[in-house]
Amino acid sequence: MDEREIYRRAVELVANARGKLEVVNKVSASNLAELSIAYTPGVAEPTRAVHADKSLQYQYTARASMLAIVTDGTAVLGLGDVGPEAAMVVMEGKGVMLKHFAGADPVPLCLATTDVDAIVNTVKNVEPSFGFIFLEDISAPRCFEIEDRLNRELNIPVFHDDQHGTAIAVCAGLKNIARLSGRDLSEKRVVISGAGASAIATANLLYALGINKITMIDSKGVLSRKRGDLNKYKKAIVESSSVALEGSIADALKGADIFIGLSRAGLLSKEMAASMNHDATIFALANPDPEIMPPDAWAAGARYVGTGRFDFPNTVNNLLAFPGIVKGAMRSRAAHITLDMKLAAVDAIANYVTDKELSDRYLLPNPLDMRLSESVAEAVAAAVHN
Amino acid sequence: MDEREIYRRAVELVANARGKLEVVNKVSASNLAELSIAYTPGVAEPTRAVHADKSLQYQYTARASMLAIVTDGTAVLGLGDVGPEAAMVVMEGKGVMLKHFAGADPVPLCLATTDVDAIVNTVKNVEPSFGFIFLEDISAPRCFEIEDRLNRELNIPVFHDDQHGTAIAVCAGLKNIARLSGRDLSEKRVVISGAGASAIATANLLYALGINKITMIDSKGVLSRKRGDLNKYKKAIVESSSVALEGSIADALKGADIFIGLSRAGLLSKEMAASMNHDATIFALANPDPEIMPPDAWAAGARYVGTGRFDFPNTVNNLLAFPGIVKGAMRSRAAHITLDMKLAAVDAIANYVTDKELSDRYLLPNPLDMRLSESVAEAVAAAVHN
Repeated sequence: MDEREIYRRAVELVANARGKLEVVNKVSASNLAELSIAYTPGVAEPTRAVHADKSLQYQYTARASMLAIVTDGTAVLGLGDVGPEAAMVVMEGKGVMLKHFAGADPVPLCLATTDVDAIVNTVKNVEPSFGFIFLEDISAPRCFEIEDRLNRELNIPVFHDDQHGTAIAVCAGLKNIARLSGRDLSEKRVVISGAGASAIATANLLYALGINKITMIDSKGVLSRKRGDLNKYKKAIVESSSVALEGSIADALKGADIFIGLSRAGLLSKEMAASMNHDATIFALANPDPEIMPPDAWAAGARYVGTGRFDFPNTVNNLLAFPGIVKGAMRSRAAHITLDMKLAAVDAIANYVTDKELSDRYLLPNPLDMRLSESVAEAVAAAVHN
Repeated sequence: MDEREIYRRAVELVANARGKLEVVNKVSASNLAELSIAYTPGVAEPTRAVHADKSLQYQYTARASMLAIVTDGTAVLGLGDVGPEAAMVVMEGKGVMLKHFAGADPVPLCLATTDVDAIVNTVKNVEPSFGFIFLEDISAPRCFEIEDRLNRELNIPVFHDDQHGTAIAVCAGLKNIARLSGRDLSEKRVVISGAGASAIATANLLYALGINKITMIDSKGVLSRKRGDLNKYKKAIVESSSVALEGSIADALKGADIFIGLSRAGLLSKEMAASMNHDATIFALANPDPEIMPPDAWAAGARYVGTGRFDFPNTVNNLLAFPGIVKGAMRSRAAHITLDMKLAAVDAIANYVTDKELSDRYLLPNPLDMRLSESVAEAVAAAVHN
């Protein structure tokens, strides 16, 4: 299918189905006896029980599987600030994935505010209905503060997929490059193109893995101590790095080992790719059109090449991570998503690829493999310390 | 089934099913082609369309049928302030009814706050995800202010069922008593026992129907101009009445024509019932145990006797009203629930009973009749003037 055909069918699909999610009854209430049990007067008894012991809510209501997909519609796909109404199309799409791959009950909550306090308070107020808060498509740097505050103020897991889903997938890919090449990645020099939610989170997860030679690039060039225009999240990335470069993306790429593109289509020229070190890694993750197309990256000498897409080898996509994270955290009733849980997900995704399967062009599992999320969930649940 | 058995099965039901509601996919995403259409990259196209024209959200997302059941858990059944966790049991039960009888997609939002501003702001913030806000089990008098403000500040229908569902059912019953007896009810003297959400709303709807001889009773006795402890909602009821009584419930009932019980079990003694006027109406709607049991009411000389229960004649239950209101308002995409729409529902419920069926013991339709909500919905939709 070409892109135009996919787009045509995507509109047809939602128009025919009136969206993609539906709420249905798990119990029947079609006669008086059933109604007395499912509704009144029967409902009083489990209500009394939960009133006496709140923890029973996870047994007597759907809370254990109810997941709110929360967005303000400010950073949707490559489209940017489309508002909450249009964002609901994407939230339902994400919901379809969360149901299919994680078995959650996803509820889109598309918010009519972009104010950090208002978003935090709204999510806190709806907390008792949900077992998981899945943040989505909230623009940086507000997304960092929102996630930080919710993590501290809620007692259910909060996960901003744009940040950590991508970061986990990238790190799993890099782990398998280390495994395949037998080389430690801590000496490798990394260039991250982009300084938004996923880029910042990826850099931070790399730091946690001991990969410290990181240069980050935003639309104005390399982030450095000399730049006076950096927000605190970008500053922290610069300060944690063990290299101190300046200049343009082309300057940064000369002799670099790993390129992680979280920016925009076509940003990486063949010349820049060719200026990288021998056996370079290029993860060009801009969607749908990557920073460089894989054939061009290979031609320029890169050895390990991945994109966010499903139609090239090495799909470095958050779909590898988020279903298992959600499943593992909800199943174990984790109070928070911790670094340990994210690192467990990285390892589980990487180790899902067998030694026999592992190759330059098979660094990561197929994200559509229905058993993957279960493997990740088990690892994530085992890393929970409530 | 006796009550103990119903309660036992109600707990078993929710424990086995883990609640009563589930979110499911309306579309498939089990292979790459389907995923490209339902999720990425396809999702971008309907998103762009809604961004360009917000009204398309009602066609391309589930918003048109998504309904939030909003509660703070402060006035749940006869149990009172059980909190949002326990309230979720009841909200899911209500959701089962809303799915079954109205075809809506119900999402419980059980709020961790009882603050009026916080509740109003939370609902305003989630508005873009929903086509209807169904308020439930919020204690009086806060429920009045919350509904008033949401009605003014939102552009989707807001309906507090505890108030208006009951009021509409009561008025439909009284309309059919007038139809059956051939007598105008405007001369009848009405006593309402209870001064909570449903009582205040019932009195106001009776006033709208021209029934003005209303005496309301709270736990301290008859509401009168001499009482210094009335909130503004109770005061307004007293001021709109064309009778001015004082004293106890027994005083008020002497010679009254219509008793509407929205209070508590057993409050109406046989003596009080016997002191009412000839051919009296007794709607004893406390649940599950009414103010007086129907056999006692009949024995005391009452002619038209109803309860909120399904196991006696004349079930005066909000289930008669809310599915049709929701269906009619959502279908017509009403911006608000107006008095005209409520009066249309009253007439539709009353007229659903044919002349042939209508009798002292068949004043109202069977609330479980699956065609009723469609009749009410048509009448409600016809009364919408957006």
